[in-house]
Amino acid sequence: MALQAAGRQSLVDTVVEALRSQLAAGEWQIGTRIPTEHALAEQLQVGRNTVREAVRVLVHAGMLRSRQGEGTFVVSTADPGDIMRGVQRAGIRDVLELRIALEAEAARLAAERHRPADLERMRAALDAQAALEDAAGQPASGSLELYANHDIAFHKAVVDAAYNTALTATYGWFSNSVREALVTALDDHAMPKIVHGDHRAVLDAIAAGDPEAAERAIRDLLEKPKRAVEALLASR
Amino acid sequence: MALQAAGRQSLVDTVVEALRSQLAAGEWQIGTRIPTEHALAEQLQVGRNTVREAVRVLVHAGMLRSRQGEGTFVVSTADPGDIMRGVQRAGIRDVLELRIALEAEAARLAAERHRPADLERMRAALDAQAALEDAAGQPASGSLELYANHDIAFHKAVVDAAYNTALTATYGWFSNSVREALVTALDDHAMPKIVHGDHRAVLDAIAAGDPEAAERAIRDLLEKPKRAVEALLASR
Repeated sequence: MALQAAGRQSLVDTVVEALRSQLAAGEWQIGTRIPTEHALAEQLQVGRNTVREAVRVLVHAGMLRSRQGEGTFVVSTADPGDIMRGVQRAGIRDVLELRIALEAEAARLAAERHRPADLERMRAALDAQAALEDAAGQPASGSLELYANHDIAFHKAVVDAAYNTALTATYGWFSNSVREALVTALDDHAMPKIVHGDHRAVLDAIAAGDPEAAERAIRDLLEKPKRAVEALLASR
Repeated sequence: MALQAAGRQSLVDTVVEALRSQLAAGEWQIGTRIPTEHALAEQLQVGRNTVREAVRVLVHAGMLRSRQGEGTFVVSTADPGDIMRGVQRAGIRDVLELRIALEAEAARLAAERHRPADLERMRAALDAQAALEDAAGQPASGSLELYANHDIAFHKAVVDAAYNTALTATYGWFSNSVREALVTALDDHAMPKIVHGDHRAVLDAIAAGDPEAAERAIRDLLEKPKRAVEALLASR
C-alpha cells in the first residue's frame, strides 16, 4: 500500500492516520508489538524517518509506547485527541454537563472516602473566599480572580477526596477546558455569581458521610451556572 | 535557552516538553499565534526541523492548530494525553467509577431529551440479547461476544440519547479503555454475569421521562460489575 499525501496534509500526517486506522480496526492488539520501522516503511512505501515521526506522534498521544531495544508496543487503540476534538465541537452547555457528571460522582465517593485533611482543604478554600466577600456576600472588586482560584481549589479538593486516579486525571484536564471554553465564550462580568452558602452544603454532606446528599448539593451548586449560561446564550 | 536531550529522550521529545510547559504555564493564550518555527528554533537553539516535528506532535494532541499561511495557534493549554496516562495508571475500580459518572449523567439527560428512535435502539439491543439467552436467562454458549456487543449497543444508545457531544466523545473513548482494561485484567469467564432485567429498568425510567429513576437504575446496573470486579481483585 503506497501512501500519497492528500492536498496540504504532510506525508507524516498521512502515515499517522494510516497507523491510527490500523489501531482502531484492532489490527494490532493491546500489549502487542507493532511491526518494525523498516517493515512499516516498506509496507506503506515511505521513508523510515517518516515512520519514525509518525510513531512519535502516537507515542505522545498515549497510543503506543517505545521500549528501548524491544520495539514499539500498543498501549491503547483509542486516541485521547478525539475527546479533545469532540469537546471542542461541543457547546458550553454540553461541557458543563460533563463537569456535573464528574463532580456529582466525585462528591458521592468523597462522602465515603474523605480523610480529615480533605475537609480541611475544602474549609480553607471557603474561608479564604469568605474573607474576600463584602457585606452583600459578593467578592470585593479587584479580588475576582483570587476568589475564582479559591473556587477552583474547593472543587479540586472535592474531586481529590474521591481517591480515584481516573476521575482526578479527567477532571484536571477537563476543568481547564471548561474554564477556557467559558472565558472564550463569555465576558467575565456576564458570568453567573458564585453563591457561597451552596459550597458549605457540599462540604457538610461530605463531612457527614452522606453520598446522596453530597451529590444533591453539588448538583444544586452546578445547575445554577448551567442555567445562567443557557439563559445568556439563548438571549444572544 | 539551549535544550539538551536527556539520556535516551530525543531532542524532539525535549522540545515537545518545552513547548508543553510554556503552554501549561499560560505563556501563550488560547487563540493566539505562537512564535514562528524560525523564532522557536532560535530561542531553543535547535534546528527548524526539530521544531516542526515537535509542533506536529502538539497539533495531533489537539493543543495547537496550524493554519496554512497564517501560522500556528493555541487551541488548548492542556494535553488530552494526560488523561490517557492518568487512566492508564488507574485501577479498574477507578475506571468503572468514571464510567458510572458518565452513564449516570447520561441516563438523567436521556430521560429529559430522548426521541422515540432512541428508545427503539435501546429496545432493539435488549431484544437481541434476549434472543440469545437460554432458559436460565444466560447467554447461550458461543454467543458471549455477540451478547456483549448488544450490551455495548444498549449503553451507547443511552449515552447518545443525552444529546451531548462532550459526553458522547468522552464516553466513546472511555468505553474502549474500560473494555481494554477489563479484558487485560480479567479472564472472560470471570466477568460478572449481565443481568437482563436491570437493563429494562433503565429503559423504562428513560421512557417515563424520570431523570432520578433513570440515574438510580443505571447505578444499580453498574454497581454490580463494580462490586464483582472488586471482589475478584481482592481475592487474588
